[in-house]
This record gives sequence, C-alpha cells and structure tokens, in this order.
Amino acid sequence: MSNQITEFREFRAKMNEKILAQNNKVMNRLWNLDTNAYMEGALSVKTKEMLGLVASMVLRCDDCIKYHLEKCHEQQVSTEELYEVFAVANIVGGTIVIPHTRRAVSYWDDLQNQPS
Amino acid sequence: MSNQITEFREFRAKMNEKILAQNNKVMNRLWNLDTNAYMEGALSVKTKEMLGLVASMVLRCDDCIKYHLEKCHEQQVSTEELYEVFAVANIVGGTIVIPHTRRAVSYWDDLQNQPS
Amino acid sequence: MSNQITEFREFRAKMNEKILAQNNKVMNRLWNLDTNAYMEGALSVKTKEMLGLVASMVLRCDDCIKYHLEKCHEQQVSTEELYEVFAVANIVGGTIVIPHTRRAVSYWDDLQNQPS
Amino acid sequence: MSNQITEFREFRAKMNEKILAQNNKVMNRLWNLDTNAYMEGALSVKTKEMLGLVASMVLRCDDCIKYHLEKCHEQQVSTEELYEVFAVANIVGGTIVIPHTRRAVSYWDDLQNQPS
Amino acid sequence: MSNQITEFREFRAKMNEKILAQNNKVMNRLWNLDTNAYMEGALSVKTKEMLGLVASMVLRCDDCIKYHLEKCHEQQVSTEELYEVFAVANIVGGTIVIPHTRRAVSYWDDLQNQPS
Amino acid sequence: MSNQITEFREFRAKMNEKILAQNNKVMNRLWNLDTNAYMEGALSVKTKEMLGLVASMVLRCDDCIKYHLEKCHEQQVSTEELYEVFAVANIVGGTIVIPHTRRAVSYWDDLQNQPS
Repeated sequence: MSNQITEFREFRAKMNEKILAQNNKVMNRLWNLDTNAYMEGALSVKTKEMLGLVASMVLRCDDCIKYHLEKCHEQQVSTEELYEVFAVANIVGGTIVIPHTRRAVSYWDDLQNQPS
Repeated sequence: MSNQITEFREFRAKMNEKILAQNNKVMNRLWNLDTNAYMEGALSVKTKEMLGLVASMVLRCDDCIKYHLEKCHEQQVSTEELYEVFAVANIVGGTIVIPHTRRAVSYWDDLQNQPS
Repeated sequence: MSNQITEFREFRAKMNEKILAQNNKVMNRLWNLDTNAYMEGALSVKTKEMLGLVASMVLRCDDCIKYHLEKCHEQQVSTEELYEVFAVANIVGGTIVIPHTRRAVSYWDDLQNQPS
Repeated sequence: MSNQITEFREFRAKMNEKILAQNNKVMNRLWNLDTNAYMEGALSVKTKEMLGLVASMVLRCDDCIKYHLEKCHEQQVSTEELYEVFAVANIVGGTIVIPHTRRAVSYWDDLQNQPS
Repeated sequence: MSNQITEFREFRAKMNEKILAQNNKVMNRLWNLDTNAYMEGALSVKTKEMLGLVASMVLRCDDCIKYHLEKCHEQQVSTEELYEVFAVANIVGGTIVIPHTRRAVSYWDDLQNQPS
Repeated sequence: MSNQITEFREFRAKMNEKILAQNNKVMNRLWNLDTNAYMEGALSVKTKEMLGLVASMVLRCDDCIKYHLEKCHEQQVSTEELYEVFAVANIVGGTIVIPHTRRAVSYWDDLQNQPS
C-alpha cells in the first residue's frame, strides 16, 4: 500500500482511539452522528459520500478529503464522476481549491493502485 | 409568489445583467463555466445541484443556497432527500450552518407553496 | 423588548420547530448535542458560553453571536469581560470581525435595556 | 445620497463611537493599526485599498467591501480597474463571491451617482 | 523534547525574528497587540488562552492551535477541561475540526510528556 | 535551487498535467481563466499578482501563496512592498495569517537566493 494511505490510516486510527478513550460525551456522540449522516436513506451512500467530499473540498480539509475519497472508492465512484465532483468544488470554492484537488488526485491514484 | 422569492430573483437578474454588460472577459466566462459545471454528465443534474447546495451551505452563502434550492426544486428533490443534504452540511460544517438551514427551510417552504 | 431581539427569537423558535418536526435523526441529534456542549462540566457554563461566542465571532455568524450573547447575558458576563472576548475574536480573526462586533454591541445594548 | 450609503455610514459611525468609548485597549489599538495599514508607503494608497477590497471580497464581508469601495472611489479607481479586482476575487474565491459582487456593484453605482 | 515541539518552536522563533527585523510598523505592532490580548484583565489568562484555542480550532490553524496548547499547558488547563474546549470547537465548527483535534491531542500528549 | 521550491514546482507540474489530461471541460477552462485573470489590463500584472497574493493569504492557502510569491518575484516586487501586502493580509485576516506569513517569508528568502 502507498505510504500516504498507510500513514493517514494509522495516525487516524491511533488518535481516534485516544480521543474516544477520554470519554468526553459530546465528542464521542459527534463521532457517532458523523457515521449516521452517511448511512443509506432517501439518498444512497454513494451520493452522500460525494456530498461529503465536495463539502470537504470547498472547506479545504485534506484529511476529510482523503477519508471521503476512500469511501467514494469503496462505493465505486468512477474517475469521470469524481472529476465532476472536483469541478463543482473548484467552481464554487475557487482556485484556492486547486492545491487540494492536486493532492486529492494523488491520493485517488494511490487508492486505485492498491492490490485488491 | 412569496416576497423573498421575487426579491431574490429580481435583484439577481438586474445585477447579473449589469455585470455582464461591463464585458470583463474573466467575469463573463466564469459565469458561463458556472452554468457548465451543473450540466448533465457522468453525474445527473439532480446530483450536481445537491452537490452545489451542500457546498453553498458549508460555505454559508445564503444567496447561493437559494439558487441551488430553486434548482433542486426543479429537479424534484424531495423534502426528505433535502434534509439529508442539510444533515451532511450541518455535520461537516457544524452548528454555524444551523442559521443558514433555518433560512433554507423558509425558502424551500415558499418554493413549494408557489402556484405551479 | 427591542425589535431585533423579538424578531431573532421568533424566527428561530418557529424554524427550529419546523426542522425538528421533519424528524431527520441526524439533525435532531445534532441539536441535542449542541445543548450538551454548553452544560456545566469541568468548565463552567459561563466559560463555555464565552467559548461559543468567540468561536461564532471568528466564524462570523451573526445569529450564532446573538444566541451566545443571550446566554452570556444570562450568565452575567460583564460588559468589560465581553469586550475582552471581542478583543480576542478581533485579534485572531482580523478586522473582518469588526462589522460583526458592531452588530454584537448593538444587540448587547438591547439585551441590557430589556425590562427585567 | 442613497439609502444604503447613508445607513451604512451612520450605523458604522455610531457603533464605532460606542466601541471606542469602552476603552478596551486592544480593540482601540487594532482600530488604529487598521488605519495605518492603508497609509501611503512603498505601495500607494490606491493599491492598498484595492488589496483591502480583494481581501474583503474573498472573505465575503459585505460591510468591509462597502468600506473599501468608498476608499477606492476616493482614490479614483476606474470601473474597469474595479472589475479586474472583482475578477481576481471571483477566480480565487469562487462563485460564492458572486452574490457579494452583485451587492458591490449596486453600492458602487450609488457611490458614482452621489452629487459631488 | 519531542520533535514536533522543537521544530515548531525553532521555526517560529527564527521567522518571528526575521519578520520583526524588517521593521514593518503594522506587522510589528500587530505582534505586540497579540500579546496584549491574552494578558490578565477582567478575564484570567487561563480563560483567554482557552478562547484563543477554540478560535484557532474553528479557524483550523494548526500552528495557532499548538501555540495556544502550549499556553494552556502553562496555565495548567486539565485534560478534561481541554476536551470540553475541543467539544465546543467541534460542535460549532463541525467534523472538519476533527483532523485538527487529532493533531492537537498528539501535541498535547507531547507537551505533557516533556521533562519538567 | 532550494528543496521547497523544487518540490513545489515538481508536484504542481506533475499533478496539473494529470488533471488536464482527464479532459474535464470545466476544470480545464477554469485553469485557463485563472491565467487570464492575472494578465495585463487596466491594472498591471504586478498589481494583479499582489491582489492574488493578499487573497491567498487571507484564505490561508500556502500553495497559492507560493505561486503568487513566484509571480511577484518575477514582477520585481520589492521586499518592502511585499511586507505591505503582508500587513494588509494580517490586519484584514487576523493573527491566524501569521503562520502563513512565516512560511511565505521562508519561501521568499529562497526565491531571492536562487542563482539567476
């Protein structure tokens, strides 16, 4: 697996465990709610993950982008569809989204080149 | 038609005309590109409009929200689907999105109560 | 009571009721969590409300500012303390926070001039 | 003078006076520094006001935009130059800057139609 | 001392020195004002540092977060209190604050494990 | 050439090529428009690049800052002028712009120390 995928997942898992162990009720419930927001409902998981991705892009949060790219990959979003999400993000959010798009493309490539 | 719908549309149309008439090439092309970003492609117009809506919500732009609500209404997004978009926006963007959600709900109600 | 206080409270109450009635689980739980985040804990309600205020100011959300000003008023934050919160918000967030500070001062004045 | 110009100036002057009278040292010095930042230096006042305008636009602060439009008007920025500032703001900041551009154009028109 | 603490402090000190040496009056005075904003007043230094921290978190500035974590550590903010600041930041600012919270927790751990 | 200059340019060039090759019409035209926005017009290239820089600073996009620093360097913006741009950015955007200013100063130094 690529370094950036492994590093992202490991730091994320380790810190999540540490934060949840602190038992701050608000933090732990927010985590839970975050999971709920992307569950199948009137909208499909795939659509919701693309919504999460575009929101993360315009707010320019690289780690959030990586997370939703992983989920989009699992949901079999095609590269063509992905670029249409990128296009909306770049038009709404402007050229400051471009550097995040570059890093998103790099992460997406690594996700696609993982051994399945 | 409700006051807020009429006011929004009239000011928007009047100022767009004025801006385009100035013939700044970058501004006018950006307008054009904005239209293109939401056209049918690998993703449907409906999905793209929901992407535009969630992006506008987390960036907290009321006029952009109104615009995409109008388009979502045209695309027959259901109220249940709409609230799932709101949920993603509020989870990703936090409680500062709530006041914009209140105004979005008020605008959506007016859109639904228009004589067809 | 001043017009801005009445208007803010009435629109807020009416739309909250409408949103909660839709029964979107994520939205309703987020509301609940929002209440929990400001409850007495290791930090006092007064400190937490000042934290909520400064966060709302740097994110420049006027309605959120009004809400936390009401809570700070209930918690008997003094005007001198309030200006120290404003000072942190303006230093961290820059002069774009000034217009929101002006509106906050206007709302605070009205809160103080309410008949008790 | 147009209503929006008068209203903006009057509320601004009244609240500034109230805030300064509170004598919070940090707030009052920040005000002072704000004035200093736009004074003639290696860059001209005109250039600095355009910098202040573009920064206010991408941060989407309507009152800050109005303030810098007034200063740009005093510095005899032409409408053609102004639209080039708008173009940079809209490209960097994206289409969420458009609603603020519409309001900026409306304010600029009123500034130009004032009796001199 | 941990690498991230040393690196942060050294780069910060070196660049601050360089920036101040340039003698731009506005920059140097802003620095000064920044120090003033967190001094004992009607509110304690501890409260002000928590205000600075929550503001830095919702604006998602990792270096600002590190700086205020150091100050909170000096002011003997407890881990339980700190998580209540995190909770307000995450509720107000949404899940895009989570990656910054993870890095904040990692920095806080290192601060606590420093030899005194 | 310094490592940070080489790394920035290489990653940027490589990812731009990859993104453009995908042939998403909206993305590719936005790129084009971005170039157009900084071309000589009623305002000089130098002024426009300083506008792009201040916008990138208040939006806190390090890669965008690097890009405009390179262009400002080509346009022979002096260090004194540059610090006046920094001053406007820090006053408008607040102390959260400081960490980005530190990194900008580091990049500017490296640009100036390149063999010509």
